[in-house]
Amino acid sequence: MSNRIIECVPNISEGRDRSVVNAIAGAAVGTGCRLIDVSSDPDHNRSVITLVGDETGLEQGVLRLVAAAVARIDLTRHSGAHPRMGAVDVIPFIPVTDTTMEDCVALSRRVGESISEQFEIPVFLYEESAQRPDRRNLAKIRKGEFEGLAAKLADPAWAPDYGPEVPHPQAGAVAVGAREFLIAFNVNLATDNLSVAKRIASAVRHSSGGLRYVKALGLALEERGIVQVSMNLTNFRKTPVLRVFDMVRREAERMGVLVLESEIIGKIPRQALVDVAISSLQVRSFELSMILEEGIEEAER
Amino acid sequence: MSNRIIECVPNISEGRDRSVVNAIAGAAVGTGCRLIDVSSDPDHNRSVITLVGDETGLEQGVLRLVAAAVARIDLTRHSGAHPRMGAVDVIPFIPVTDTTMEDCVALSRRVGESISEQFEIPVFLYEESAQRPDRRNLAKIRKGEFEGLAAKLADPAWAPDYGPEVPHPQAGAVAVGAREFLIAFNVNLATDNLSVAKRIASAVRHSSGGLRYVKALGLALEERGIVQVSMNLTNFRKTPVLRVFDMVRREAERMGVLVLESEIIGKIPRQALVDVAISSLQVRSFELSMILEEGIEEAER
Repeated sequence: MSNRIIECVPNISEGRDRSVVNAIAGAAVGTGCRLIDVSSDPDHNRSVITLVGDETGLEQGVLRLVAAAVARIDLTRHSGAHPRMGAVDVIPFIPVTDTTMEDCVALSRRVGESISEQFEIPVFLYEESAQRPDRRNLAKIRKGEFEGLAAKLADPAWAPDYGPEVPHPQAGAVAVGAREFLIAFNVNLATDNLSVAKRIASAVRHSSGGLRYVKALGLALEERGIVQVSMNLTNFRKTPVLRVFDMVRREAERMGVLVLESEIIGKIPRQALVDVAISSLQVRSFELSMILEEGIEEAER
Repeated sequence: MSNRIIECVPNISEGRDRSVVNAIAGAAVGTGCRLIDVSSDPDHNRSVITLVGDETGLEQGVLRLVAAAVARIDLTRHSGAHPRMGAVDVIPFIPVTDTTMEDCVALSRRVGESISEQFEIPVFLYEESAQRPDRRNLAKIRKGEFEGLAAKLADPAWAPDYGPEVPHPQAGAVAVGAREFLIAFNVNLATDNLSVAKRIASAVRHSSGGLRYVKALGLALEERGIVQVSMNLTNFRKTPVLRVFDMVRREAERMGVLVLESEIIGKIPRQALVDVAISSLQVRSFELSMILEEGIEEAER
């Protein structure tokens, strides 16, 4: 694998039969495509598969994964709590190291076109890869789910970006796209007053006037007797983590409340932490090559 | 190379003849031992060689480097501005990734003992590897230099940690040890008042009552019309970068001066930046495995 790393997180519509999930996830593994996580939810009857690799490796790995899923999943007999329209429901590509969003958009379109040609599956491009603004939002594309797909595709406004204007009989349709890495970031406050957390969530989130790439909710952590501003940061490059944290802290202080601590749930890209450090220290003209380990990795190539 | 990375920075007493320097530096290269930098100073007549690798690779690489230096450098004919007592003058080992100071101390002692046995060179252990407190300081060990070495070694108080109590005829003696990575970190202030920078340097540095692992100096940047607190941070694990920066900023504010920016000179270990980010965000129970790329590297092994 080169040092260029893209993450790809296919969601498949099987979360109960472990052997089926493993066969599909395992099919992706190959040169330039590694499997780093499989997480299944039986209630949702859905699995989230995390792959990393370079462009060539992921393109080939994802096509093998789709082939394995089409052979094993029949949506006419699928039920689960999570909305879905395809055997492979959604395939997002995420830039991680030495790759750009443009690279991932190009890759997603290439993979989408190949899926439509090899498997006769209709493909919708979503998020950053969308070719029309009303297709950025995955929820809108998926509305009606597998059961409503034939009628939806018959509507010229919902002609797929690639492939036939009828669903694949068992595999439905698939949404393929590129998006930024999502950071789940919570800030815990030194109070048990839930309205403080709710007011801060409302101040920082995009939907009610806050920062563009923040989703937020105020929650009570009953057992600990404190409250939490629970957030999804959907683009840490444009809305940096430190700016979000500082805004939460400032809003809390305005109500006489201190920040107790923060929590990172799941994974955070190294670049997001480096950005926090560089901003905190006001470092002038920082370059990645100033990090010792980057020089070492350079020497290893 | 495994993911365990130690840095080793042998200083050799040749900084003028490029072919000799390259022959000595190149001798170190081998499995588990990579050469990432060579920096020569003709006035000092000295070169600083930066190697990275794992324990086995560095042990073998450093022994090959010493052999190459002993064959090519004759200290009886050496002159230069920098103090020196050996053909290979000093060999520090620095923990970088997945290694501890204890690992580096053990490695330095093993390498020191091998050097004394293979080349009949007296070896002093210094810094973290020192076996007596008065040998922590390299300047004290080197005092008297090559020319004073025979007399020094005859003094029982200066018996070497390994090897003969007489100098090697051409190669002198060598100091081997383990130390932390040194970060060169400057903070520029929005004033042309040099006394502000000098007073802050005096407040933060260890020698005049400040933080344990900080050396600092107040300087004027004449061309830019500003002043600078220029620092060496000699142990970022025990005196973290953010604490130093915050203290400089606070002291400056006390004198009505704002921090303009900071500068990192040379390299900074990734861990030092991650530490800054985690402190800035007040992250609770952070683990390295929460960094996306760490999981990827794990999967690649």
